[in-house]
Amino acid sequence: MKKVGVILSGSGVYDGAEIHEAVITLLAIARNNAQAICFAPDKSQSDVVNHLTGEVMAESRNVLIESARIARGAIFPLAQASENDLDALIVPGGFGAAKNLSNFARLGSECTVDSTFSALVKNMHQAGKPLGLMCIAPAMLGKIFDFPLRLTIGTDVDTAEVLEEMGVEHVPCPVDDIVVDEENKVVTTPAYMLAEDIAQAATGIEKLVARVLALTE
Amino acid sequence: MKKVGVILSGSGVYDGAEIHEAVITLLAIARNNAQAICFAPDKSQSDVVNHLTGEVMAESRNVLIESARIARGAIFPLAQASENDLDALIVPGGFGAAKNLSNFARLGSECTVDSTFSALVKNMHQAGKPLGLMCIAPAMLGKIFDFPLRLTIGTDVDTAEVLEEMGVEHVPCPVDDIVVDEENKVVTTPAYMLAEDIAQAATGIEKLVARVLALTE
Repeated sequence: MKKVGVILSGSGVYDGAEIHEAVITLLAIARNNAQAICFAPDKSQSDVVNHLTGEVMAESRNVLIESARIARGAIFPLAQASENDLDALIVPGGFGAAKNLSNFARLGSECTVDSTFSALVKNMHQAGKPLGLMCIAPAMLGKIFDFPLRLTIGTDVDTAEVLEEMGVEHVPCPVDDIVVDEENKVVTTPAYMLAEDIAQAATGIEKLVARVLALTE
Repeated sequence: MKKVGVILSGSGVYDGAEIHEAVITLLAIARNNAQAICFAPDKSQSDVVNHLTGEVMAESRNVLIESARIARGAIFPLAQASENDLDALIVPGGFGAAKNLSNFARLGSECTVDSTFSALVKNMHQAGKPLGLMCIAPAMLGKIFDFPLRLTIGTDVDTAEVLEEMGVEHVPCPVDDIVVDEENKVVTTPAYMLAEDIAQAATGIEKLVARVLALTE
């Protein structure tokens, strides 16, 4: 059974992993007869957002502990993830990717990426293993790799320009489809960068998971 | 388009709504071309559990605010839910159903049910509208209705006995199936009372959503 690392970054679209994207990813992995293994960085969240009002709350929460809500407790510190144990890696979106796995939300093209996450992604790629990233998560790839990847974050022209400043080739893509960089085994889909409802997001995510697993063959 | 009220009780299996059950419910509703409208009680959670360790945390969180994470902000206080606006009601499980919508986790057959929730469920039933409850959530029905409903929480004999003390007829049911009380339009499925992985839970939940929507005709 193929093992897919799923990297979570909290639990909630505005300060963590986008919950629908994460759960749909886990379900698609299971339905493709593969095994998901969840990881998240063991560090404080960048912020805590009241998801009812959008306001920042005067609280501190830990990314790993909150991510464990999505994983029903079955999750490991990101530092324990190794390319030797995994056949593929998938990263759901949400602001957690842009606030906790990187600081893209604050610094845009000048952002830095969590060093543990960056090293894992590089090691997976060097081991010839496929990567799947959705929503805003692909924005980190331009900072991780020093060669141009083909990827999508949907159709937002401004965000696409920022990504191209970071050295990637951005390909516009509708919500229900994927962009595949075959040579580098990198699959991306817009998910909630474009989705107007959960069914739209699911269609693209299910394609992404299927293609990532096909690339492990 | 049919409108389905989805009652959340926090965000995380050990102190709130079970996240996988909630998201799979929302996805199944959308894929059946119906509209989900999320509600949750605007009150403090019974407790906050560290989902990595299982230990109670010295924190206080609000059920509505945390539920908003699953709903991406699109959620209303439970007190605003009315049988006049909804065609059906679905309640995901998780300890939130047994700690925040009721105190079943602490008091078993002696439990009480949140009065706003209880009134809504009764009003929906009296209006001839179908109810779907999964995982441990059906345990509340014996306290809400004073006539015996046919329902399931899976195959756990001890829990089933407690439910029968509360006046329901418990029907053992495998994880991938549903129990339907046709006369009362009540549909139940074991979900994570039995599921060993997310795909197992999804099969039963998808059947539940489809049947609940069929009962709105």
